[in-house]
Amino acid sequence: MADIRVLEIKESVFADNDRQADALRKELKEKGVFLLNLMSSPGAGKTTTLVKTIETLKDSLRIGVMEADIDSDVDARTIAHTGVKSIQLHTGGMCHLDATMTGQGIRGLGVEDIDLAILENVGNLVCPAEFDTGAVKNVMILSVPEGHDKPLKYPLMFQVCDAVLINKTDVLPYFDFDMDLVKTYIHQRNPQAEIFPVSAKTGEGITAWTDWLYNQVKIWKEEK
Amino acid sequence: MADIRVLEIKESVFADNDRQADALRKELKEKGVFLLNLMSSPGAGKTTTLVKTIETLKDSLRIGVMEADIDSDVDARTIAHTGVKSIQLHTGGMCHLDATMTGQGIRGLGVEDIDLAILENVGNLVCPAEFDTGAVKNVMILSVPEGHDKPLKYPLMFQVCDAVLINKTDVLPYFDFDMDLVKTYIHQRNPQAEIFPVSAKTGEGITAWTDWLYNQVKIWKEEK
Repeated sequence: MADIRVLEIKESVFADNDRQADALRKELKEKGVFLLNLMSSPGAGKTTTLVKTIETLKDSLRIGVMEADIDSDVDARTIAHTGVKSIQLHTGGMCHLDATMTGQGIRGLGVEDIDLAILENVGNLVCPAEFDTGAVKNVMILSVPEGHDKPLKYPLMFQVCDAVLINKTDVLPYFDFDMDLVKTYIHQRNPQAEIFPVSAKTGEGITAWTDWLYNQVKIWKEEK
Repeated sequence: MADIRVLEIKESVFADNDRQADALRKELKEKGVFLLNLMSSPGAGKTTTLVKTIETLKDSLRIGVMEADIDSDVDARTIAHTGVKSIQLHTGGMCHLDATMTGQGIRGLGVEDIDLAILENVGNLVCPAEFDTGAVKNVMILSVPEGHDKPLKYPLMFQVCDAVLINKTDVLPYFDFDMDLVKTYIHQRNPQAEIFPVSAKTGEGITAWTDWLYNQVKIWKEEK
């Protein structure tokens, strides 16, 4: 069993999260590190999607993962088995990560040898949407069983995300989920959002998502 | 289309939520009103379960529903069609309800003619677990697609709940969900938790849950 490094992180006492987030992004830009903030409800398939993403990209990008969890290390054990560098962040009951907490995670992980750092945020569609973590791109996973009405109910999350993965497409036949309607609802909230229907379980649609992510990392690293 | 009453609610400025919660419970006891706090992730099936619960119990109990949502009224429209008294609570971005907010909801709903008041809390497994709303019983819904590991990852939610509904049992054949294991995990966190496997879609298991709820309301109204 791979060792799990665990870091207990604390929320910033500063009200100026946006300034901290911009400073972290600037620091990461100088280091050539792309930070992805991955968000979803509990059980939407963040960890399984992350494993598929790592398997697809690990030969072309050096990847590091920060697993944020309230106090467990279930997912960090799964990620550790992919062989990429990873760290568990314990939020001590906190429902989201802010930029200061993310910065603590980045320093705990160590990103000198990393192209793509991925933050798996706490499973929550409300609070994480309110805090800029310093990420270059925000991505959320909505799963088919959750229903196509979620962009109506959690609008801020859909507004702040650059891409939305619609996961668990393998179970589409068993749910009343309207893929066209969810795309309409998402684009009503956020016309620029990229949408990728995927099944992390079967691998369907994963390369469209990883190609997009790979290009985002390249653009970030090459832009001055 | 039934009219939807919407109430914009504000978080308490008081730090003493527990005292407010006890005061609300005492007030409801005097009025003979049982308050149920219903929690889950987004998309676990709170509203569908609530509709089935209302259909089963509405001839034996006078029911009122408070639908808490960040800023939509999607679910309130569904509940309004059941014919029970209901009100939409807008939390203005807040990720949970505290006792003061719930008290505002109770007064907005009006409970003079109600035996069972149900609060459908914000879809979130983290923050609502931390705030006593003044409810007599806390109940959560975990859905099969979310996975059997959730009691490990969101322990406080499972600790504070008197009953856990395992919803969407109709899709058990399509998911790697271990019903025995989830029961073990839940009872590790909370040995007293009642567990009801249900399918709000097909109605399977609903009467075991509604019988339990009916008895809890009777006990609360009869106990002095």
